[in-house]
Amino acid sequence: MSTICIQVINPNTDPGMTQTIAEAARAAASPGTDIVAVCPPDGVPSIEGHFDEAIAAVGVLEQIKAGRQQGVSGHVIACFGDPGLLAARELAQGPVIGIAEAAMHMATLVATRFSVVTTLPRTLIIARHLLHQYGFHEHCAGLHAIDLPVLALEDGSGVAQEKVRARCIQALQEDGCGAIVLGCGGMATLAQQLTRELQVPVIDGVSAAVKMVESLVSLGLTTSKHGDLAYPERKTLSGKFAVFND
Amino acid sequence: MSTICIQVINPNTDPGMTQTIAEAARAAASPGTDIVAVCPPDGVPSIEGHFDEAIAAVGVLEQIKAGRQQGVSGHVIACFGDPGLLAARELAQGPVIGIAEAAMHMATLVATRFSVVTTLPRTLIIARHLLHQYGFHEHCAGLHAIDLPVLALEDGSGVAQEKVRARCIQALQEDGCGAIVLGCGGMATLAQQLTRELQVPVIDGVSAAVKMVESLVSLGLTTSKHGDLAYPERKTLSGKFAVFND
Amino acid sequence: MSTICIQVINPNTDPGMTQTIAEAARAAASPGTDIVAVCPPDGVPSIEGHFDEAIAAVGVLEQIKAGRQQGVSGHVIACFGDPGLLAARELAQGPVIGIAEAAMHMATLVATRFSVVTTLPRTLIIARHLLHQYGFHEHCAGLHAIDLPVLALEDGSGVAQEKVRARCIQALQEDGCGAIVLGCGGMATLAQQLTRELQVPVIDGVSAAVKMVESLVSLGLTTSKHGDLAYPERKTLSGKFAVFND
Amino acid sequence: MSTICIQVINPNTDPGMTQTIAEAARAAASPGTDIVAVCPPDGVPSIEGHFDEAIAAVGVLEQIKAGRQQGVSGHVIACFGDPGLLAARELAQGPVIGIAEAAMHMATLVATRFSVVTTLPRTLIIARHLLHQYGFHEHCAGLHAIDLPVLALEDGSGVAQEKVRARCIQALQEDGCGAIVLGCGGMATLAQQLTRELQVPVIDGVSAAVKMVESLVSLGLTTSKHGDLAYPERKTLSGKFAVFND
Amino acid sequence: MSTICIQVINPNTDPGMTQTIAEAARAAASPGTDIVAVCPPDGVPSIEGHFDEAIAAVGVLEQIKAGRQQGVSGHVIACFGDPGLLAARELAQGPVIGIAEAAMHMATLVATRFSVVTTLPRTLIIARHLLHQYGFHEHCAGLHAIDLPVLALEDGSGVAQEKVRARCIQALQEDGCGAIVLGCGGMATLAQQLTRELQVPVIDGVSAAVKMVESLVSLGLTTSKHGDLAYPERKTLSGKFAVFND
Amino acid sequence: MSTICIQVINPNTDPGMTQTIAEAARAAASPGTDIVAVCPPDGVPSIEGHFDEAIAAVGVLEQIKAGRQQGVSGHVIACFGDPGLLAARELAQGPVIGIAEAAMHMATLVATRFSVVTTLPRTLIIARHLLHQYGFHEHCAGLHAIDLPVLALEDGSGVAQEKVRARCIQALQEDGCGAIVLGCGGMATLAQQLTRELQVPVIDGVSAAVKMVESLVSLGLTTSKHGDLAYPERKTLSGKFAVFND
Repeated sequence: MSTICIQVINPNTDPGMTQTIAEAARAAASPGTDIVAVCPPDGVPSIEGHFDEAIAAVGVLEQIKAGRQQGVSGHVIACFGDPGLLAARELAQGPVIGIAEAAMHMATLVATRFSVVTTLPRTLIIARHLLHQYGFHEHCAGLHAIDLPVLALEDGSGVAQEKVRARCIQALQEDGCGAIVLGCGGMATLAQQLTRELQVPVIDGVSAAVKMVESLVSLGLTTSKHGDLAYPERKTLSGKFAVFND
Repeated sequence: MSTICIQVINPNTDPGMTQTIAEAARAAASPGTDIVAVCPPDGVPSIEGHFDEAIAAVGVLEQIKAGRQQGVSGHVIACFGDPGLLAARELAQGPVIGIAEAAMHMATLVATRFSVVTTLPRTLIIARHLLHQYGFHEHCAGLHAIDLPVLALEDGSGVAQEKVRARCIQALQEDGCGAIVLGCGGMATLAQQLTRELQVPVIDGVSAAVKMVESLVSLGLTTSKHGDLAYPERKTLSGKFAVFND
Repeated sequence: MSTICIQVINPNTDPGMTQTIAEAARAAASPGTDIVAVCPPDGVPSIEGHFDEAIAAVGVLEQIKAGRQQGVSGHVIACFGDPGLLAARELAQGPVIGIAEAAMHMATLVATRFSVVTTLPRTLIIARHLLHQYGFHEHCAGLHAIDLPVLALEDGSGVAQEKVRARCIQALQEDGCGAIVLGCGGMATLAQQLTRELQVPVIDGVSAAVKMVESLVSLGLTTSKHGDLAYPERKTLSGKFAVFND
Repeated sequence: MSTICIQVINPNTDPGMTQTIAEAARAAASPGTDIVAVCPPDGVPSIEGHFDEAIAAVGVLEQIKAGRQQGVSGHVIACFGDPGLLAARELAQGPVIGIAEAAMHMATLVATRFSVVTTLPRTLIIARHLLHQYGFHEHCAGLHAIDLPVLALEDGSGVAQEKVRARCIQALQEDGCGAIVLGCGGMATLAQQLTRELQVPVIDGVSAAVKMVESLVSLGLTTSKHGDLAYPERKTLSGKFAVFND
Repeated sequence: MSTICIQVINPNTDPGMTQTIAEAARAAASPGTDIVAVCPPDGVPSIEGHFDEAIAAVGVLEQIKAGRQQGVSGHVIACFGDPGLLAARELAQGPVIGIAEAAMHMATLVATRFSVVTTLPRTLIIARHLLHQYGFHEHCAGLHAIDLPVLALEDGSGVAQEKVRARCIQALQEDGCGAIVLGCGGMATLAQQLTRELQVPVIDGVSAAVKMVESLVSLGLTTSKHGDLAYPERKTLSGKFAVFND
Repeated sequence: MSTICIQVINPNTDPGMTQTIAEAARAAASPGTDIVAVCPPDGVPSIEGHFDEAIAAVGVLEQIKAGRQQGVSGHVIACFGDPGLLAARELAQGPVIGIAEAAMHMATLVATRFSVVTTLPRTLIIARHLLHQYGFHEHCAGLHAIDLPVLALEDGSGVAQEKVRARCIQALQEDGCGAIVLGCGGMATLAQQLTRELQVPVIDGVSAAVKMVESLVSLGLTTSKHGDLAYPERKTLSGKFAVFND
């Protein structure tokens, strides 16, 4: 078996979260898979809304381009809003998977309905839009926010983690759901422990996305270049985007 | 009546198209309305896919920020994919309207179903996604592409314009639609003539969006800052995005 | 700029409410716009269900016909159920806008999700059906009734107005919405004050519809006569409907 | 078994079509069922659009009121647009069934998908809206019009009937449907013959609605008066609508 | 009038419930209708999940085959999950109606929205899926479970019946619904009493389905054999399924 | 890494197709994965409709029970209708994946829209229903049938295979899709060659499902036993189903 190399992109610029994500990705990777975890040099330290996502998307695309030049097998976009996903698919040769997408897909395979637990309430609209875009709005039993910012997951206090755990328990009791989707890359390392404790699938998108890229690559399936995900039309980008010109 | 100042943002960097859009906007503006037409200094010369849109969104946001600092009343995003629309709404104080959104809304007010005529086939998926996001997928009778790039509308030959006209006629005959939405900012100046010739509403999003901003401003309605369109969380952007730090 | 004349039709026969609606319409109208506020001579004194709507629709259509003969530029149907809207579009030459339609459209332009506050609970089903017809059911976060009849808004006590205010506040806290749509023509004059007090867009359909008609007229867009909104087939109406024969 | 009396209302004023509908209703009625076929004295001679429907709805409601006073068991609205259906349910004590509703419901019981064959193309939008309102849009494989007015079915030439037959055959070949819904009360007498000839269920709404009313009545089920179909709020109607005051 | 013979199939093997269902069916049947109530010899004693349904479907199909050979006019599948419905339609010549389908259809004819009261919470997902399959998800205001197993309805204590009654009252107060659908064949005999007591339509699917089969049969409508409900492709079944070979 | 053992269940009784499916599964499996391919002893030789599926579901469930007793890690249901999927999930401890589900999920990860190519036209309704159940109806650009029975894929002539290839090419040209889903387990071995030849992802559900089970197992995710996929209620099955009693 040839080696698979997966580029895991943390769309924000926080090194701690990049590390968290890298660990989750490596823990999920098969023996023959290399994980290259990166984050963009320029961007936002955390992603908590549409503006943050729009900025982060450019950083994601720069990394996709770099990853493709390095010959990686596929890419993971490790922010729960999947910023820049379709744009990244245009740019990439291999498969590109977002962690919201991955977690939602996996959840529908092990439960009839799932709930989402995320960070700030203002990000719920992003999850809601993704549910519609991916086709899973009827499979979602509830959307919940712990009302703490993303980086609270990195402050070492464990407060955010405890709030996530409490919200998961509440969702299971009230929503009639059979699985929980963790709505932030920074929650990646919580999934296994919560799965064991709560005795239901608690799904982290980072590890789910790593398995999906491995699956697609090993099946020889890459992003379709027939039609609307074909490489971007050739044109010269200007100014700070000139980095995208070959 | 106090003066309304609308910033019309061409998300691509093409000066000719900025000019076309500015003309359409000015023709639509009420006597008391000033139009400030801009395009970002850095970006893509035309927008024909998700990658182009992701790049353009940053330019849009820079202009939104500048426009807000200049005290404009509201903003128009003059590319049919409405790149960066929700991010722009977070950043803006006044209303922000995309031209796809504006044209689709107006079309549902004058016909039970409308068809869309756009440029390259690969952009149809963007229109399709917007129809779902805005709630108008059941109101759309057909999606059509003339299979020419955006900038063919600026080459002075009239070939693209003739293809648009032919596609509109075909759509009216085959789709059972009552109105046509023109799917590109570069088609803005065609709408009035086609409306007269074809005797059906042929709707340009640029002028439609100008009227919508005027309407919202004069009603005292601005983008809601309660909830998920609140101003972005305060955080320090790095590198080439530092321009967004105040 | 030529003068625009908008016929604002109160579908019920209550003169007080016609007055309330006329004031809101005039306050919203641009300098060059004349407002002609009318109500049908025959009909129901208030509209609080499907039966009331079916009766009111005939009165609306009589006024549409009269307005067209008087050469008005466009029409507003100023009852939140938009009674007779598509029939009125068949009959009219200019654009016809319902106030539910107008308020819902505008709400989606300034917030990702809105809530509706209306009068009697039995009218909620009408709002629900309109949300589906217009494509906005996914954009609606909640439907609320103050459980008072329409004419309580005209009794001068302010009780109904205070209930509307309280329900708006409750909806903002519980629904996760970013804007409020006022669900009755009789609430028209509350919108501006509530917008200021609650610091979110509180949208009145009467003023919203006036701006939409102004917009369509100034863009040269009229109701499509191609297809299913063409003028009614010529036939002789009998008895009390003979007024519709030319 | 007590006698059931069903009022079958032809919403247009054409006596020939009332006769056609009465025959179809009587042929479908069980031995213990009386059919009272009526049409309004005032109204439109045929119904081919939203305007015609709005006028006809008032006539329907007058007949509903009269029928209720006469103590009929239930009501059928025998026009394929089901004009005034929900308003009639408010006014009625017994069940009220529209023929489009009845035919569509029955079609989903004998086939996975059905097609509709109706008269003028402009009425297709009405069928389309009803499919959504009743929940059957995913069960409809095609909407077809013979492009002849309603009253062509009454001209004795048989031309319209032959066109209906040809359209049914075409729909079966092209749509992948398993049943046909006839989209006009004037086609009622064609259903049985076409069912035999084409060897698929060809469904007439008049007979289907008669069976549905019989079913509901014999089960003791009447229109719910709990909630939004309760009797209209008591209020005094004016002018030509005073007939609705008790 | 020729006699109609309806085979009512209790998909579980419980004789008490078969008896309950038979009584409800006979009470609903018209004078000229014979009811043949059967249950499969092999299967599950009650149906409370997808596994139970998959087993029960085979028993249903065996009975359908037997009923067809006996020349019955049509069939009722008397379990609220409608197990094997489309398969039964392939196998049958006459119409086949499921009781969930029947009750849901009838509910939409007498109320704008209905709620469902069923047995175990784990069966709610089945009702939810059927609502989508039949097109009625927007017509359902609430799904409720009494949290007792199906056979508690047969234990003679009346506890389950009282819980059903309490849940119906709660649903009417909280859901804004106008009718109740009883979600289990074992609740069939409760409908008439609850309808009288609660003064809203409380609908039992067994009696509703009997009327629907009667209606279809008397209209000469049978399951379409054109297309995807044609008789199963001829092939030899093996082992315990050889009973299906002619 | 511990060994993963996947039970691949061919729901029909055809040994040739079981072999085809086993080969595809083994070709897709990771080095550490064992494939146990089985088919039920009793059942139908091919599955081409709802009746065939209902029969096959029981065989699937028998194999699931046996597999669970043998301690397999997870299960694949290798028929494009995913017969018995939710029932199997109730019965299983590990994950259970259907091949339609797997192929459709994977297709949405590499293309914005996909088309399906299957065998007999009568099976299209099954694919259509699954698209809705899984949430992918908006992601499907076309449904196509080669109009040959399933076992034509096993006759050695290559005619069916050539028809599949031709239909794929046609779908790519006409549907505007970016990927093809092969709609039959018997087409499993065609995917890789067609992917190479047509230069788009042509997706076989068998290999896709194997990767999904591997992914779920290696992430420690099993079918949720919280809620509606809990093990079936304990009850004694009778007759030929007594095999399910422990």
